[in-house]
Amino acid sequence: MRVLILGGDGYLGWPTAMHLTSKGYKVAVADSYLRRRLCKEEDVAPLFEVPDLRERVFAWKYVSGYNIKVFIGDLAEWEFVETVFRTFIPDAIVHYAEQPSAPYSMLNRRSANLTLKNNLVVTLNLIFAVRKFCPDAHIVKLGTMGEYGTPNIDIEEGWLDVDHKGRHQKFLYPRQAGSLYHTTKIMDTDLLWFYVRMWNFRVTDLMQGPVYGLFTNENEDNEQLLPFFNYDEIFGTVLNRFVVQAVVGYPLTVYGKGNQTRGYLNIKDTLTCIRLSLENPAKIGELRIFNQFTETFSVNELSKKVQSVGNNLGLNVNIQHIENPRKEAEEHYYNPKHTGLSELGLRANLLTDEVLEQMITFVLKHKSKITIDQIHRKIKWA
Amino acid sequence: MRVLILGGDGYLGWPTAMHLTSKGYKVAVADSYLRRRLCKEEDVAPLFEVPDLRERVFAWKYVSGYNIKVFIGDLAEWEFVETVFRTFIPDAIVHYAEQPSAPYSMLNRRSANLTLKNNLVVTLNLIFAVRKFCPDAHIVKLGTMGEYGTPNIDIEEGWLDVDHKGRHQKFLYPRQAGSLYHTTKIMDTDLLWFYVRMWNFRVTDLMQGPVYGLFTNENEDNEQLLPFFNYDEIFGTVLNRFVVQAVVGYPLTVYGKGNQTRGYLNIKDTLTCIRLSLENPAKIGELRIFNQFTETFSVNELSKKVQSVGNNLGLNVNIQHIENPRKEAEEHYYNPKHTGLSELGLRANLLTDEVLEQMITFVLKHKSKITIDQIHRKIKWA
Repeated sequence: MRVLILGGDGYLGWPTAMHLTSKGYKVAVADSYLRRRLCKEEDVAPLFEVPDLRERVFAWKYVSGYNIKVFIGDLAEWEFVETVFRTFIPDAIVHYAEQPSAPYSMLNRRSANLTLKNNLVVTLNLIFAVRKFCPDAHIVKLGTMGEYGTPNIDIEEGWLDVDHKGRHQKFLYPRQAGSLYHTTKIMDTDLLWFYVRMWNFRVTDLMQGPVYGLFTNENEDNEQLLPFFNYDEIFGTVLNRFVVQAVVGYPLTVYGKGNQTRGYLNIKDTLTCIRLSLENPAKIGELRIFNQFTETFSVNELSKKVQSVGNNLGLNVNIQHIENPRKEAEEHYYNPKHTGLSELGLRANLLTDEVLEQMITFVLKHKSKITIDQIHRKIKWA
Repeated sequence: MRVLILGGDGYLGWPTAMHLTSKGYKVAVADSYLRRRLCKEEDVAPLFEVPDLRERVFAWKYVSGYNIKVFIGDLAEWEFVETVFRTFIPDAIVHYAEQPSAPYSMLNRRSANLTLKNNLVVTLNLIFAVRKFCPDAHIVKLGTMGEYGTPNIDIEEGWLDVDHKGRHQKFLYPRQAGSLYHTTKIMDTDLLWFYVRMWNFRVTDLMQGPVYGLFTNENEDNEQLLPFFNYDEIFGTVLNRFVVQAVVGYPLTVYGKGNQTRGYLNIKDTLTCIRLSLENPAKIGELRIFNQFTETFSVNELSKKVQSVGNNLGLNVNIQHIENPRKEAEEHYYNPKHTGLSELGLRANLLTDEVLEQMITFVLKHKSKITIDQIHRKIKWA
């Protein structure tokens, strides 16, 4: 199967590319290095330098023998999209090509405008490219659990059956997100759902929770192959950030009361979920939605886990509650369902002490590279 | 009260500008003539020529004594938006500045891309301009009943109370539209609702049905002041189109079975609804939603009304069912609520035979200008 990964340079795009080639897929990646550019503009950087896509492809070919085709360009430009699809007609597309940071999207008008335009125009271009070049291809789209927000009822997998005044209707589960970034993902869903109905596309929307970790079966022995590991407030996901903060002796910054609960997953499980979705494609005319996470934690629980494992490793980990820069519920009901991917065969890699130990031990090796001033930039929602 | 009308050259924008000045409001209008440009590109034109905005403002001042400030420019460009808001700081904004045609949005990739970018970037710019220049201003946004689609349960006014497994949540009423244009209006709602929650804006979202007619209290005696009256498949709304078809002896083209039912309103009532919303603003932090229509008709009912009145006026009106170029339900439940605007004081101008007679008689005067080849362009949804 030929798989095109949009956003193949990203935290998840690159590990996905390696994983799929190792499982026998023919893979091409496209990326504009947008995340690298935004990191430079905002003066933040991953824990260690990451080679560019062509260098990583070369390194991966050297160790694995598998090749990955690379397209560097802006998927918001139709000419580039046409070139990619004409050159590598895919059986499936994995769409990660979005500005992925909630805090970035809340910085200012320019960052909001970039997020809105990039994310929606890339998705629209993808839709028209599939229509033109490969109408039967399976689109695997990364959504986010953040689209749902924190409703007071159970979060079902994508759809909600509503009984109202004696009549019945199945709706897309109503979405209400907590950042502009997350709102653009809702709008992606609006777009894809519309064209699924009009043009009978087959789409899997993976509503993913925050991902943690950096080790996969493909990169464990080779630091050149690791993904971006950001620990800054803008591009770092919360657990990765806490691990770095623990190592460098910076108190774990918990926003507000810390009872904000989300569904998390290990980066290894992201790769499995993508592969399982590809192996079991959505039907023609189907928007299939999975909630992609393996366990839920509050921010308090996460910080205590990191503190406990860190202290056992001889660190002195403190936790500090700071004024919440976001506008979000700090106490809320949260009961999201996630049976779809398990039924396809997902066996979770849970957040054990061993997993945290491995992460902390790795970051300790890179401790000298940590620059504290990027950890907390005080980006405010309101 | 100072009211800024975005899209002030449009079918509804211009009549709104006149109406509000006549009621004592200070009014400015902004427009890029986008609709005029798209009509030229697609080779369609209104029934009669409409003077440009500055000429209309001059004509209106001549007959009424009221002035309207004009800004010509692209509201998708931030610099222009800043100039407008800095020059005329409004107490309220009426936002019509969108590519308004569903068939246009379904023409091709370019038209879809233009619709998506224009509609969303203008709305985002509006949001940031209000935040910067007038955070307490009341935003009156034109939504559309088409956002709801045709669900199998009653359509409430904007919100839906859901009981699910013993718990309760109030959601934005789930939306599922029938064209890309309508989908961009859903996305507008997503955007506005997000920033209402974040920044405590006051927003009224008017979910409007198709509007018909051209006469208002302000223009009845002066053809120079009439709005665009398109009868083509792209920019003509259905009843206006049927009236022209009846006059010129072109069969009324009913798509498919013709049982598609929608909520309609007279252009006079649109103006009243806008004014009532301005007089009774949304609260701080409130997204207030009204369903803006006065009566529902199926396409079959509309065509029969036009046929009956037309034949009484001596025309020979035929009705022709053609293959539905859209992908939509032709038989469906439809029970939308619309009490909010009535409670504010709306007294409907219903679609009487007299109203249709007045429209047909007017179009008869302009019969020689009708060009038949623009009536039906065969734009297909799928």
